[in-house]
Amino acid sequence: MKFELTILGCGSAVPTLQRNAAAQVLNVLERYFLIDCGEGTQQQLRRFRVPYNKINHIFISHLHGDHFFGLIGLLSSFSLQNRRAELHIYSDKRLQEIIEFQLKVMNSRLNYPLIFHHLDREPGLIYEDRMMTVHAFPLKHRYEAPVTGFLFAEKEKERNIKREMTDAFQVPVAFMHRLKKGEDFVTPDGEIIANGRLTTAPPAPRSYAYMTDTLFRESFAEYVKGVDLLYHESTYGNEFADLAKETFHSTAGQAARMAVLAGVKHLLLGHFSSRYPDPAPLLEQAREVFPNTDLCYDGAIFELPAVKRG
Amino acid sequence: MKFELTILGCGSAVPTLQRNAAAQVLNVLERYFLIDCGEGTQQQLRRFRVPYNKINHIFISHLHGDHFFGLIGLLSSFSLQNRRAELHIYSDKRLQEIIEFQLKVMNSRLNYPLIFHHLDREPGLIYEDRMMTVHAFPLKHRYEAPVTGFLFAEKEKERNIKREMTDAFQVPVAFMHRLKKGEDFVTPDGEIIANGRLTTAPPAPRSYAYMTDTLFRESFAEYVKGVDLLYHESTYGNEFADLAKETFHSTAGQAARMAVLAGVKHLLLGHFSSRYPDPAPLLEQAREVFPNTDLCYDGAIFELPAVKRG
Repeated sequence: MKFELTILGCGSAVPTLQRNAAAQVLNVLERYFLIDCGEGTQQQLRRFRVPYNKINHIFISHLHGDHFFGLIGLLSSFSLQNRRAELHIYSDKRLQEIIEFQLKVMNSRLNYPLIFHHLDREPGLIYEDRMMTVHAFPLKHRYEAPVTGFLFAEKEKERNIKREMTDAFQVPVAFMHRLKKGEDFVTPDGEIIANGRLTTAPPAPRSYAYMTDTLFRESFAEYVKGVDLLYHESTYGNEFADLAKETFHSTAGQAARMAVLAGVKHLLLGHFSSRYPDPAPLLEQAREVFPNTDLCYDGAIFELPAVKRG
Repeated sequence: MKFELTILGCGSAVPTLQRNAAAQVLNVLERYFLIDCGEGTQQQLRRFRVPYNKINHIFISHLHGDHFFGLIGLLSSFSLQNRRAELHIYSDKRLQEIIEFQLKVMNSRLNYPLIFHHLDREPGLIYEDRMMTVHAFPLKHRYEAPVTGFLFAEKEKERNIKREMTDAFQVPVAFMHRLKKGEDFVTPDGEIIANGRLTTAPPAPRSYAYMTDTLFRESFAEYVKGVDLLYHESTYGNEFADLAKETFHSTAGQAARMAVLAGVKHLLLGHFSSRYPDPAPLLEQAREVFPNTDLCYDGAIFELPAVKRG
């Protein structure tokens, strides 16, 4: 029951040899979500041994090249490798125009259904299945490329039956699904058996939020309140606060401030400017504000273990 | 006075971890020519330390993704790095549509002039300067992607003056440019001094030809007659001759046969199918027909030294 993030690229506009363009894979319970798809993402997927044929959903934050130039190559490779499964893309609607125009001009067809879901500027649910949800929310970047953040969250799971206790109280099978939802059990004699005696709490639902590229705005904290893991861009160190503002990016200190405001558990910094061959100074700056911060690097894996509750 | 080929990627349709998508840089006398530009080319340029800001001419063989999906990223990075110099692209005219459509939809502008030169199906000169020429010629691949081959050749250089001899015969300065062109000198007394006594021959002009992706056709040999170095695709080994034909590709044996027919000096094999993690068997097959054959690998450098003549 994994919840695991693999960083495929954490560079910014111009990639470096240390850092590829933006891309990540989030594995939630064996669902593989690709988040951004900069140039070279298909090679990074191979390099870090991600089972990329399992990717059925791709989320593109915005239409700057370092976040989507790898998409057409990945789509083509899927086709060459005889993919048949539907592929869903969540993005600015203009991405559909770009992809479809290229395929048309190339006289090329994909073997599998490609389904675009257009993101608007309203926060809301964009994906849901039995176990989890994805919400989108608007961030603030340059005018030509409206940016969307994403929040991936497990749903609350059902409670776990204590078999020896339900046997002892002779709970009928037909009542089990109500027990799992937290109801108390009433015996034929009218005795109330508290749910907590018959079940244990499931692990807490886990959550991950992705925020890049964006200016820092306090109001964004509401979208990512209390998430377990937050990836926040930190293109610059605090010494370039003016440049960050001018280019609609954030500093390490601002990323940390967001983590504090939103009360998240763990912060990851990424999208480092190529001026930082080693982004260690950014880590220091962030940790002064929010100690539980880590740096991303290409190939880094961050796993959220399932945590038992009381 | 270099003439040097760097292989950036020698994979085929689907790249592998060993082999990136198609791209090469040819350095002719410090002119840097990029030939094809598959996804990830800008990273390969960095990896192999090519001074890529010196690239002013890009040649795209055809519109299959593994030969051009890296172009938009490279063009964007040039712009982000404040390139100002003109960039020339030689390609199928549809590539201009693809690039311009993307830039338009992204509301993006390049900082530098981008000049497209459309290749048609006629063989001919497409580039010329004081020192060299580039010729294009049609190959045969799938209908949706007409393929062009390229021939890069130095021009014949002027002869080198033997200073001690021109001094001895008191050749006037005004006559030197005629000497360099091979004329004999006639002294004021009417004595004819053979040019060969006053000059030495320049190194032989060097040449390189690029042929991918293509079916084998004997008639193509005329385009690359006697080149010093020939890159010929060898997607498959001889055991897949039928598959090669079906997919409009060549085998190792056919590549070697082309080298023999054209009387080239040195053959390079590339564009290997991902089914060959190690293409050594292809080398063996080719060498049976044309011994002076080598395999490409990403990062390989092949230099043509300037060779003195008699």
